Amino acid sequence: MTTVTVTVPATTANLGPGFDCLGAALTLSNRFRFSRLRLGERDVSITAIGAEAEQVTTGADNLVYQAFVKVYEQLKQVPPPVQIEIQLGVPLSRGLGSSATAIVGGLVGANALAGSPLTIDEVMRLAIAIEGHPDNVVPALIGGCHLAANSIDTGWEICEIPWDVNVIPIVAIPAFELSTKIARQVLPKTYSRADAIFNVAHLGLLLRGLETGRGEWLKAAMQDRLHQPYRQVLIPGYETVQAAAIQAGAYGMVISGAGPTLLALAAPQTATAVKEAIATAWANQDFLVQVQALQINQKGAIAQVVVDEAP
Amino acid sequence: MTTVTVTVPATTANLGPGFDCLGAALTLSNRFRFSRLRLGERDVSITAIGAEAEQVTTGADNLVYQAFVKVYEQLKQVPPPVQIEIQLGVPLSRGLGSSATAIVGGLVGANALAGSPLTIDEVMRLAIAIEGHPDNVVPALIGGCHLAANSIDTGWEICEIPWDVNVIPIVAIPAFELSTKIARQVLPKTYSRADAIFNVAHLGLLLRGLETGRGEWLKAAMQDRLHQPYRQVLIPGYETVQAAAIQAGAYGMVISGAGPTLLALAAPQTATAVKEAIATAWANQDFLVQVQALQINQKGAIAQVVVDEAP
Repeated sequence: MTTVTVTVPATTANLGPGFDCLGAALTLSNRFRFSRLRLGERDVSITAIGAEAEQVTTGADNLVYQAFVKVYEQLKQVPPPVQIEIQLGVPLSRGLGSSATAIVGGLVGANALAGSPLTIDEVMRLAIAIEGHPDNVVPALIGGCHLAANSIDTGWEICEIPWDVNVIPIVAIPAFELSTKIARQVLPKTYSRADAIFNVAHLGLLLRGLETGRGEWLKAAMQDRLHQPYRQVLIPGYETVQAAAIQAGAYGMVISGAGPTLLALAAPQTATAVKEAIATAWANQDFLVQVQALQINQKGAIAQVVVDEAP
Repeated sequence: MTTVTVTVPATTANLGPGFDCLGAALTLSNRFRFSRLRLGERDVSITAIGAEAEQVTTGADNLVYQAFVKVYEQLKQVPPPVQIEIQLGVPLSRGLGSSATAIVGGLVGANALAGSPLTIDEVMRLAIAIEGHPDNVVPALIGGCHLAANSIDTGWEICEIPWDVNVIPIVAIPAFELSTKIARQVLPKTYSRADAIFNVAHLGLLLRGLETGRGEWLKAAMQDRLHQPYRQVLIPGYETVQAAAIQAGAYGMVISGAGPTLLALAAPQTATAVKEAIATAWANQDFLVQVQALQINQKGAIAQVVVDEAP
């Protein structure tokens, strides 16, 4: 009996000016355990444990299983009956890439169970196709911070963004959800030339700030005019929390993905103060919030295969 | 009698997706020689030599002298009578930052003649104020490739962009001019969200491509949707020349500044072929063109002060 356990990191997308093109893997993860069921049993059996586990669908429409099946479709094989045990560490629908962990977990698990016939590039292409964009699934799969840009043909160019270890990501995860659909509906359809140029320039500055850890660049870089101004208003307390984070020494604070989780970047020596300032500011607004100082996960999804030679 | 000779490099701005925020200094330069005139003589005497020297205004409205005077305004001093000899190496009004060389030349020359009371940062601020934007004057002053983004206050954050020596800039300078005003008039006032995101992502990819020299990133990165599609039509033969450059191995080809000079980037082993392909393609269109494979100038403006202790 072969079992595969896949650990997949949470991800934070956008990072301010990198709207719809930048994402980074965080040291916070979901775990997915795949065991073949005997033939003749049901196709799939799914269980979930951890916070918010009751919100996970356990039928064949579960995203982990959907991704699992895609691998076998690609291989032109019938997927084997499988038991999937989900151990949740990433809060759902908060802008931390929980769907990306499910997609990557299902793909990597299926590929490992099948004896790894697909290359990492093939798995990545499947993940992007299922999710619809690379921002979260790419770092969830291969770790680190990555930028995605359209290549000359119809594909994506994926580019690693160096991240100085002295730039600490701090996530503040509130106890309410924000619909990605609504977060996208509030965006304008067009932007002024000045706003477009503003974001181009600040994305460049952000990449150089992340690479070098230079505080003055990061402070200026964490400004955005494509999504933040329209989405901030959907997050109660945003301005208060942001002001508190910056007051405590953060370079800046932005929305993680489509929110409502907030992401601050800070130097190691101010990280604890920033963490506490955010927690206090949001608690004062009567919102429960979980604040964590993390690191960038550089490894991405990791599969452990255990072959149990039962008699 | 003190004379100051200032050598200032040409610059290429935009580089495709870096519209209005990115500029690099090239190994092509103008030279400005400043000598004090005796008191009582006229305020300024200007001469120019080199190609197109007849187009240089030699009155007090000359941009070199205008910049020269600004330094003394800043110092709250009366500018000394001065002779300025201009030796032109950078073609005028072609998108190679000739005005930026004049501004930087005048400022650096005046500052050196005055005994260097202004810091390089102060000179830079003056240069940006005169030119109106940092794209050309910053690399003309300090060399290399630089990105400028609005800081949190009203100033600019200037950020150095590493440039791999194996990325060769090739400029093709046609024998016609293109008005910067017209090149700006053809731009739309607003852009779709997709176009704004496209440029943000490709600027990021361009910076990583320039830093690493990775061809596949540079090829995808040299795409733009903010200015190139609107300006290319103003340059006769653009598409033919671009296709020839890429066919010969260039990563891509873009408009230098507001044009009409074109900038191709290529690996050292293809640079000669790219240069020849561009020259042939444009000659076939009956346009005279000067094509040069250059390097990035890393030093910026250099002032040589000669104190001649006349008896």
